Amino acid sequence: MSSNTGDTGRGQRLYKKARTLIPGGTQLLSKRPEMFLPEQWPAYYSRAKGAEVWDLDGRRYLDTTHFGVGACVLGFADEDVDQAVLGAIQSGTMSTLNAPEEVELAELLIELHPWADMARFARCGGEVMAIAVRIARAATGRDKVAFCGYHGWQDWYLAANLATDALGNHLLSGLEPAGVPRGLANTMFPFMYNDIEQFRRVVETHGKELAAIVMEPCRAEGPAPGFLEEIRETASRLGAVLIFDEVTTGFRVLTGGIHRKFGVDPDLAAFAKGMGNGYPMAAVIGKRAVMEAAQSTFISSTYWTERVGPVAALATIRKHRDKNVAEHLIQVGRTVKAGWKRAAEQTGLTLHIDGIDPLAHFDIQCEHKAAVVTLFIQSMLDRGFLASAQLYASYAHQPAHLEQYLGAVTESFDVVARALEEGTVEKLLRGPVKHSGFQRLA
Amino acid sequence: MSSNTGDTGRGQRLYKKARTLIPGGTQLLSKRPEMFLPEQWPAYYSRAKGAEVWDLDGRRYLDTTHFGVGACVLGFADEDVDQAVLGAIQSGTMSTLNAPEEVELAELLIELHPWADMARFARCGGEVMAIAVRIARAATGRDKVAFCGYHGWQDWYLAANLATDALGNHLLSGLEPAGVPRGLANTMFPFMYNDIEQFRRVVETHGKELAAIVMEPCRAEGPAPGFLEEIRETASRLGAVLIFDEVTTGFRVLTGGIHRKFGVDPDLAAFAKGMGNGYPMAAVIGKRAVMEAAQSTFISSTYWTERVGPVAALATIRKHRDKNVAEHLIQVGRTVKAGWKRAAEQTGLTLHIDGIDPLAHFDIQCEHKAAVVTLFIQSMLDRGFLASAQLYASYAHQPAHLEQYLGAVTESFDVVARALEEGTVEKLLRGPVKHSGFQRLA
Repeated sequence: MSSNTGDTGRGQRLYKKARTLIPGGTQLLSKRPEMFLPEQWPAYYSRAKGAEVWDLDGRRYLDTTHFGVGACVLGFADEDVDQAVLGAIQSGTMSTLNAPEEVELAELLIELHPWADMARFARCGGEVMAIAVRIARAATGRDKVAFCGYHGWQDWYLAANLATDALGNHLLSGLEPAGVPRGLANTMFPFMYNDIEQFRRVVETHGKELAAIVMEPCRAEGPAPGFLEEIRETASRLGAVLIFDEVTTGFRVLTGGIHRKFGVDPDLAAFAKGMGNGYPMAAVIGKRAVMEAAQSTFISSTYWTERVGPVAALATIRKHRDKNVAEHLIQVGRTVKAGWKRAAEQTGLTLHIDGIDPLAHFDIQCEHKAAVVTLFIQSMLDRGFLASAQLYASYAHQPAHLEQYLGAVTESFDVVARALEEGTVEKLLRGPVKHSGFQRLA
Repeated sequence: MSSNTGDTGRGQRLYKKARTLIPGGTQLLSKRPEMFLPEQWPAYYSRAKGAEVWDLDGRRYLDTTHFGVGACVLGFADEDVDQAVLGAIQSGTMSTLNAPEEVELAELLIELHPWADMARFARCGGEVMAIAVRIARAATGRDKVAFCGYHGWQDWYLAANLATDALGNHLLSGLEPAGVPRGLANTMFPFMYNDIEQFRRVVETHGKELAAIVMEPCRAEGPAPGFLEEIRETASRLGAVLIFDEVTTGFRVLTGGIHRKFGVDPDLAAFAKGMGNGYPMAAVIGKRAVMEAAQSTFISSTYWTERVGPVAALATIRKHRDKNVAEHLIQVGRTVKAGWKRAAEQTGLTLHIDGIDPLAHFDIQCEHKAAVVTLFIQSMLDRGFLASAQLYASYAHQPAHLEQYLGAVTESFDVVARALEEGTVEKLLRGPVKHSGFQRLA
């Protein structure tokens, strides 16, 4: 692994330019260099393969952070998926006729989720969640939505913040609803994961007006006993559509939605990220009675008909199943979590570790957390790792990678522990402190 | 060209299955087999190359219809675009870092549209129009939108049909707003293209409450003298954002938005379809003061960060410019329009021909139009052509193709003319009459 000399390089220079051309600099909050290491993060890649990434200066890193925001469960540039995509390109990615692979993909998703009967496809996660909510509203003739957690950028969701800062306790505090029509106020009602009392209060107030209950079946922690079951029963009783957002949780602990592990079936489930392994693809699957409502409304887009998406998804999902990729992801997560714990003990840091195994996360118990994590990221980058306080496991993460990674983590935890002890955290930073959430760029 | 024997084949059998697995059968209304030739249309493709398409039975057709709904201006599976995409695949389509090509693409789009300063990207046309409207609403702090024409499936647009059937006179009559929250009623105010009086009435009533004026700069006809200019002046006076939807009109008569031909600049312009030549890609470009409002709200999605989209767009746009593809498209359209006229005169049909040259359309002046067009499509399919009452020109359409096509058109117009004379239109159809717009599938 090449070591980073601290030269900010071509990536930062290009990013400086990007900020004059692209509001926010990137297309995704979680890929803003400021979310990692302002003024030092390599920002752009020239090549990505397996678990390795090369920046614009040709420096090589091991990716031990959110790994393409969870989009590449099999690893970057997976050969089997790419081979299938090359076939799709050779035979033409678009035509006036339809791609037969979308029917095959619908069948495969339904085979993996026997409660579901039908599927519709899109290309992005935020987009497919908007389709799911549209279908639920069309099926019920109602507008209101009870929800828990983060579900993307679209109007239906950000409307939650129109009245109050309802999203404040959810994933990204302070998501601005600027530009979301005020007529959507009072359509969104939040409840916290595993807070069944709060859920009951939402139901008490809005009960029969709820079109949908939207949630991830699992967040940093799994469901408390009876939590998902009561929500399922309540949805059925109210005639509301239960939507599981599996955009992040899907294809982690099994091939398909994590809800299968909990034995509770939704009415609709949405997938994106992991299902395409880096090629844009998204799906909503559901029970026939609900899905048929898609026909009573208008949900249609030209680029949902191209061939690469379904072909990539078929190859990704089949490999995921055939190679038992989920088991690998779980093992990687467990090894990493145990390694973090050990490294913290050795260096005297106190960690809180959470997340399902393949989406592991740690929190250093200290003051000025953002500065401390920034120092950790800087120390890891110096050692040739793209790192942060989370690691999304990939099939490309091999034992040797994890050994190197955990060695560097121990060294970096040591840097952090000593800096905390000596009060030198800010002094050791060669650039500004990382951003922690939604923040306007000058 | 192989002739179609009338056997409905594998495509129709697969489509029958698709309808049990996918509500509506396809992901796009305009690709439903019922929109062309119910029970006979080949429905799916195995291969597409240049202007040719092969169905699941290996039958070859020349594509002389909407040509991938206008997504493939260069032709199917264009070698230069595909070569660039293969490079992107080899170097990895996704990473935790960003794809540098998106900065290059922002620069190129701004170079082509000197009034614009910044760009954001998405992957689908409906999606990018929702981003444009969000930015306009965020920039103005207002919710209402004056609009003309069709702009996709999302809530902000379908809201137009909540109160009345406002979309009735626009592109797709009867678009159902089922599932669109009622709180969005009275946000959308339609005006007809080139009806400046109607536009003035909308402005009189809603003037300073308008966040945006959304329209295609050109529809079947071009702008009447002063029409776009008055809209531009009014938008500036009201402080409303003028958004040109160039998803369909872009990259037809020049490299970039058709508005450049009319000398009227919007505040934002949106592109998709033609810019990716069959790979999902979409962009909104705009003036800095408006685009910066994207930073006051939350617009972010994982698959907007992959590499194939920008790489395909760069290759498509550069080839479009270098080869003067627009000139070719215009010539194809003119040849086709002249050929239609000649064929109609020879066979005694009366046609109304419209559309900009690269997006040519004809309307047979007769009763029972849907049945008559169905007979035309059937006759063309028998002769080895995917055809309808429109032809979207492609760089892959060569003079020899057009000669074959216009020969088949003359024969098929003759079939239609004789059937009209003899009252045998319905009798000659081997399947049901085509659908003409939004229609529920049983």
